[in-house]
Amino acid sequence: MKPDQLSAAQAARRIETRELSAEALAAACLERIAERDEVVRAWAFIHAKQALAEARELDRMPRRSRLHGVPFGIKDIIDTAELPTEYNSPIYRGHRPRADAACVTLLKEAGCLILGKTVTTEFANNHPSPTRNPHNEKHTPGGSSSGSAAAVADFMVPLALGTQTGGSVIRPAAYCGAFAVKPSFGSINRAGTKMLAESLDTIGIFSRDALDLALALEVLSGRPAAEPIGPSEKPRVGLCRTPCWERADEASRANLEAAARRLAQAGAQVRDFELPAGSEALFERHKVIMGYETARSLAWEYANHRGEISKTLLPRLEEGWQVTRAEYDAMREHSRLCRRALAESMRAVDFLLTLSAPSEAPASLASTGDPLFNRAWTLFGVPCVTLPHGKGAHGLPLGVQLVGAFDADSALLAWAHWACAALA
Amino acid sequence: MKPDQLSAAQAARRIETRELSAEALAAACLERIAERDEVVRAWAFIHAKQALAEARELDRMPRRSRLHGVPFGIKDIIDTAELPTEYNSPIYRGHRPRADAACVTLLKEAGCLILGKTVTTEFANNHPSPTRNPHNEKHTPGGSSSGSAAAVADFMVPLALGTQTGGSVIRPAAYCGAFAVKPSFGSINRAGTKMLAESLDTIGIFSRDALDLALALEVLSGRPAAEPIGPSEKPRVGLCRTPCWERADEASRANLEAAARRLAQAGAQVRDFELPAGSEALFERHKVIMGYETARSLAWEYANHRGEISKTLLPRLEEGWQVTRAEYDAMREHSRLCRRALAESMRAVDFLLTLSAPSEAPASLASTGDPLFNRAWTLFGVPCVTLPHGKGAHGLPLGVQLVGAFDADSALLAWAHWACAALA
Repeated sequence: MKPDQLSAAQAARRIETRELSAEALAAACLERIAERDEVVRAWAFIHAKQALAEARELDRMPRRSRLHGVPFGIKDIIDTAELPTEYNSPIYRGHRPRADAACVTLLKEAGCLILGKTVTTEFANNHPSPTRNPHNEKHTPGGSSSGSAAAVADFMVPLALGTQTGGSVIRPAAYCGAFAVKPSFGSINRAGTKMLAESLDTIGIFSRDALDLALALEVLSGRPAAEPIGPSEKPRVGLCRTPCWERADEASRANLEAAARRLAQAGAQVRDFELPAGSEALFERHKVIMGYETARSLAWEYANHRGEISKTLLPRLEEGWQVTRAEYDAMREHSRLCRRALAESMRAVDFLLTLSAPSEAPASLASTGDPLFNRAWTLFGVPCVTLPHGKGAHGLPLGVQLVGAFDADSALLAWAHWACAALA
Repeated sequence: MKPDQLSAAQAARRIETRELSAEALAAACLERIAERDEVVRAWAFIHAKQALAEARELDRMPRRSRLHGVPFGIKDIIDTAELPTEYNSPIYRGHRPRADAACVTLLKEAGCLILGKTVTTEFANNHPSPTRNPHNEKHTPGGSSSGSAAAVADFMVPLALGTQTGGSVIRPAAYCGAFAVKPSFGSINRAGTKMLAESLDTIGIFSRDALDLALALEVLSGRPAAEPIGPSEKPRVGLCRTPCWERADEASRANLEAAARRLAQAGAQVRDFELPAGSEALFERHKVIMGYETARSLAWEYANHRGEISKTLLPRLEEGWQVTRAEYDAMREHSRLCRRALAESMRAVDFLLTLSAPSEAPASLASTGDPLFNRAWTLFGVPCVTLPHGKGAHGLPLGVQLVGAFDADSALLAWAHWACAALA
């Protein structure tokens, strides 16, 4: 198998046994990027020579973690001192932060290689980026972590970081046929990540394998990956259609129900799961919190560089400025109540099974698709994993989403690994 | 009265009626700084010409808020695009951020003047800054918002911003004889403020008057200031000695009890208030959360510039790296439970009355004093106000702290105004 086809865990094992060098792996990734990125456009900045030199240094160094030598793509909303960080905004053209973000430093300290910066939408919001879906270049890869999802799905890099404030990790992963985790709120330190909505922004991880997510999250959160689930353990699964079920397309709904049947065949106790009363507001009124906070986080840009903000983002910021503090406070309080109620009702299950997105990736580059099935979970703060499963009407990948209890990220990833086997 | 002696509200009113210009006010502040800052050392950066030019521009502009034309000092942990931002660390010498922090933009949009940057301790931690207590230069002003507290108390500027992660707003204000508010967690947007402990960092405000805090918080939080308390309204006050009572000095304890008697004489129903069971851990084990998070937030500095980190901070970062994720998660969960229990028990009171600090400002410049009576409240996330009241054994100011229910910041400030009158 060519090195760029390996999962992170497979690559790291070969690097450990010296069957593969970090340099050769980086070179294979860079080659794949050279071949494909003219079409996919997943990368914002790569300094190939610098990356190869760093890989050689990692090859000379003692092993620092289970991911030693493995390359990562870093969404360009996350600061890097040695590569530009432009947030896909002309306001930040040529911007070079003084420091690496905490998450980047944690990766480097674990012996991981920063291969380059992946394309974000403008300020991780919803103005489309130039990135295309690697399965069909006429379709969106989703956003806002467009480049990270596309690069990982297209075998350009085994792992990448993104961020989710609404649905910016889970949705693009599902659209591109990648795996991803949006951990619990607070799992990965956010210092040096451009702040958009401070009570929502969450750093997430993309991969082509469930195990890789667990290894990367171990490095980034400091929580040990869980032991694999034994063959005799069977999960209690809540099939959660959500109040927005009718807004998903038929293929996605049928696919989720088929996945539920497969899990049941594999021994899971599957039953319908109703979200606590009041949760519908989290799907619909997430924008009260995201809008209010994002408008203020981008206050300097709005006050000083309005002409350089896209026609997509500008009205969203205006809308955010219209939200009153009282509405915002009421929505925060409502979210806190819903969070507690969900924690209570999730005691009865090991994880929820739900949609990752309302459809496959739309056949358009003019929108990044709909985060409808992601926003509430971001607001709940609970961990979410998307696994590729099934195909949509146009033959693009579909995903299914597993949702765990707050802070039970490691357990959720172990169940995700189990579910992959059950769905295979 | 000389303009630099005016409260922010008084100054703003005179600016509105054209009795005073923003330029004359800024000039008076700059003159006071020129006279006094060689001793007090409260300011990190001032560009006097630029500030005066901006003040003239504000004088030509229509009034933008109730604080139009009023100058602010900004703690040098908060980004400013037009002034250096060095976090009092040689690692950031000459650092000039691309953007203003959200709080700075909010002030500018309200027609406030950014007079300059005030001295912070290194990364808002506990290595002492060069700032001195304006009441006695041999005493610490407290920290980490050393410069903001000292500058306001010394009439160099009527208002200033600071940040509190442990006790970095309330304690220096009390030591310097200033007023200050540490609002509820989430009240003021933190974009562009150097992240230290993301679940604790809170932007706060210093003034010489309770009303000024309310006006500034209105601008920064978007919550309208509360109407003044009517003469017939009397508060229910919980006198909260905390589990650390015996660690405060006698003068401070006697002063707090005298304050409680004065409030009772003014009509308050004062009764003893016991914190919910388990709260003692918040006083003692706050460092589990602050240490864990700060170590990660400063991961880049620690990995790349260890030699430029002070001998005070370095062992704290090492300690932070020793905290396990499990300890950290357990402490977060414990804090959440305490927060809910406090919210329940605070329904019976309008505010708590407690110590701002265990003593007056210590007679040393080698330490910034003890945040013992602040840390738990930061972890609870509830709003805190300190009012100057009484004197310590060395004749330095003492403060008393009022603590409100989560998000009831405006009500707390209205009660603080009432309490000032009662204590006068």
